[in-house]
Amino acid sequence: MSAAIALSERSRGRTAPNPNVGCIIVRAGCVVGRGWTQPGGRPHAEAMALAEAGERARGATAYVTLEPCAHRSERGPACAPSLAEAGIARVVAALVDPDPRTAGRGLALLREAGIAVAEGIGADDARRAMAGFFIRRSAGRPFVTLKLATSLDGCIALASGESRWITGPQARAHAHLERARHEAILVGRGTWDVDAPKLDVRLAGLEGRSPMRVVLTSRPHPSGASRLPPSPDGRGKRPAREASGKGEGDVIRIARPEDIAQIPADHLLIEGGAQTATAFLRANLVDRLLLYRAPILIGGGKHALADIGLPDLATAHARWCRIDTRRLGSDTLEVYERAPCSPE
Amino acid sequence: MSAAIALSERSRGRTAPNPNVGCIIVRAGCVVGRGWTQPGGRPHAEAMALAEAGERARGATAYVTLEPCAHRSERGPACAPSLAEAGIARVVAALVDPDPRTAGRGLALLREAGIAVAEGIGADDARRAMAGFFIRRSAGRPFVTLKLATSLDGCIALASGESRWITGPQARAHAHLERARHEAILVGRGTWDVDAPKLDVRLAGLEGRSPMRVVLTSRPHPSGASRLPPSPDGRGKRPAREASGKGEGDVIRIARPEDIAQIPADHLLIEGGAQTATAFLRANLVDRLLLYRAPILIGGGKHALADIGLPDLATAHARWCRIDTRRLGSDTLEVYERAPCSPE
Repeated sequence: MSAAIALSERSRGRTAPNPNVGCIIVRAGCVVGRGWTQPGGRPHAEAMALAEAGERARGATAYVTLEPCAHRSERGPACAPSLAEAGIARVVAALVDPDPRTAGRGLALLREAGIAVAEGIGADDARRAMAGFFIRRSAGRPFVTLKLATSLDGCIALASGESRWITGPQARAHAHLERARHEAILVGRGTWDVDAPKLDVRLAGLEGRSPMRVVLTSRPHPSGASRLPPSPDGRGKRPAREASGKGEGDVIRIARPEDIAQIPADHLLIEGGAQTATAFLRANLVDRLLLYRAPILIGGGKHALADIGLPDLATAHARWCRIDTRRLGSDTLEVYERAPCSPE
Repeated sequence: MSAAIALSERSRGRTAPNPNVGCIIVRAGCVVGRGWTQPGGRPHAEAMALAEAGERARGATAYVTLEPCAHRSERGPACAPSLAEAGIARVVAALVDPDPRTAGRGLALLREAGIAVAEGIGADDARRAMAGFFIRRSAGRPFVTLKLATSLDGCIALASGESRWITGPQARAHAHLERARHEAILVGRGTWDVDAPKLDVRLAGLEGRSPMRVVLTSRPHPSGASRLPPSPDGRGKRPAREASGKGEGDVIRIARPEDIAQIPADHLLIEGGAQTATAFLRANLVDRLLLYRAPILIGGGKHALADIGLPDLATAHARWCRIDTRRLGSDTLEVYERAPCSPE
């Protein structure tokens, strides 16, 4: 299942509104098929893996990170019947599909076809790998990752504003890889005006995976199209992208953190600055924290966060748990997730 | 040698002005003697190990973290002749003793006695273990460790001043263990007045190892004995300890970070607050950084450091390298040392 989850990560940030599923087909101890949801959401992981396995799927076990779909769509066949037709003998699924069109019917259909079914294997890791899909389903908004790059004492710049660079080239390359795993990236108006960031993916081979850009601003746009249109139910509505003569083509503007529900993305990366990070934390809209830290002390610089509305110290505890840490050159990356979660 | 260095750590902070040496005697693959410098500086590690080994020292190898002393003292015999008399066949030393009374004469004496000698083995780790001794010899001051306990965003308290507790019980216990490894502990006048800290070691069995207390303050003492007496050569002078009627018995007062040279300690732990930490960093008088971090965000709280006098970001880099990291409950301890040093 771990291998299937690793495959699913390949298309994180590229399959919305479909989940990024991974699938591995194993026969007699050998992997005979591997698949992951393709960009745009189709073909599904199971279809990819079955195509690779061909006749070797007969009698094999399929490991899937999400229950195979039971609903036929115009865009492709349903996976549960396909697995049965291919002669799969056993299906191991990490999670049941929350989509009401499947929601257990996929596994039921497999069982009815005489296939052995196990579920819940690797559920926590699979949910983490498909967090964007799940939070869109449960909360109607993207999964939000806040990126901070700080000194050991929590500064993001000198008092003069100098911030290039705090972290080294390995950490910055990793941050670009994270951009490629998000459909959308957001900065505040201050960062936008000062740094005019491209917010693209500057990694060889991944240039095409730059996320859509979002600016948090209450200032009206010069064109008059000031911000996202109000959405009746506040979720899922795809705003018209704007073009302007100021290098802001294709930039989405939102006025409040809560407006992220309207962004057509399941994964949103918040990159700065301090005011924006603070606004999202105050709104309790951060699910994951990427903390890049350089082994330097700044002292008296610009701090990563302003008042996030903490009433007392007890309230600060047990909100975050670290799920990963790694060295990036001389820097350190720590990944925290909203508690409760399975710690590292 | 690693085992000998581990033994030497047992008396770190208790042997000044002598070095905390470790010694292991090995014969035919078996450890037959172990020793470390005893509190107060005598007996020496070699004498302890030889006493344990007895007749088994004959033909054995002695691993010592520092060159055995060649100078006889009223407090005990010289170790190099003792090793030769005991019949030791080989001595492996990590470092040459910078004490001018020995300074290579110990190893020369061993060689003259027909003993095989190797030096430089494990030198970096041994120097780290005896850092207080070496920096007192080279710079005439104690080895300074700065302890910080912060949130992920570098705060040491809420804006309200609430700081109990940021880190959990395991991290706090570890910080008390660190106190036991220092002869002296220093806080600023602000921390002293607000928290009236005991600055003792609250660990079962180690209560007797509470360090002497030092306060950094320019305010005169109510008794009139305002601060350390000026020292002609600025080093090594033991100030008279003061007693007062305000619970400040045995507290040493210094006016400037540079005055630490006069503290009769080879290891000084700086515990707070932000102003004091900043003053020592500005004075470039921090050798080691203990960074206890809790997995919490505070935002807009009191920051660990104020202006440390950094002219630009480039200057901040390559000053610190991480030499250790560990989990303490849900907190993390990172240990940094002044660069250059061997990284983790």
